[in-house]
Amino acid sequence: MVQYSRQLDSAFAALADPTRRGILERLGRGQASITDLAARFDMTLTGMKKHVQTLEDARLVTTEKVGRVRHVRLGQHRLEQEAAWMARYREMVEGQMDRLGAFLERTQEDNP
Amino acid sequence: MVQYSRQLDSAFAALADPTRRGILERLGRGQASITDLAARFDMTLTGMKKHVQTLEDARLVTTEKVGRVRHVRLGQHRLEQEAAWMARYREMVEGQMDRLGAFLERTQEDNP
Repeated sequence: MVQYSRQLDSAFAALADPTRRGILERLGRGQASITDLAARFDMTLTGMKKHVQTLEDARLVTTEKVGRVRHVRLGQHRLEQEAAWMARYREMVEGQMDRLGAFLERTQEDNP
Repeated sequence: MVQYSRQLDSAFAALADPTRRGILERLGRGQASITDLAARFDMTLTGMKKHVQTLEDARLVTTEKVGRVRHVRLGQHRLEQEAAWMARYREMVEGQMDRLGAFLERTQEDNP
């Protein structure tokens, strides 16, 4: 449960940044080096390394060093638990709206 | 687009904390006051107000002051854009795995 919770923490935190979401979208079209990504996002190598580290800690990307170049690709984490959590949240919101609708209907019936 | 991006930032950041996810789960069973929530999560009123503010900024809850009590309930934000983003990410991961599978197949055919 704690492990599950930490995974949600790190995945949601990693996704809460437009540059990191942009990196994932770029990697969706194929792997890239840290240098490519830094150039693409107009960022220093150090800044890009930090973003990639955050994504790697959340298991959203994997990296591999080949010679002097570090290649980054999408990880195998499919955000299944995160999607399940959000689906449950959506059900809760809909349940609340149903209850509110039922309440308003009863109120109208009582005060026609 | 910027607006859309900011909404994703604030929603994902709000969800990246186990207490805030716990508050949403609690509110799924009905509205609660800030005082109730602080007691439930063994937290100071000030700490709880900050969490509720973060959730309210991300439109995940709404609050209403009735007399001296501030009531909190789930907002009407259904995380639709966030869920769509994650579904797209999942498709990208699956596309990458398909390409990798096809590559490995070709490699095996070339070196039987």
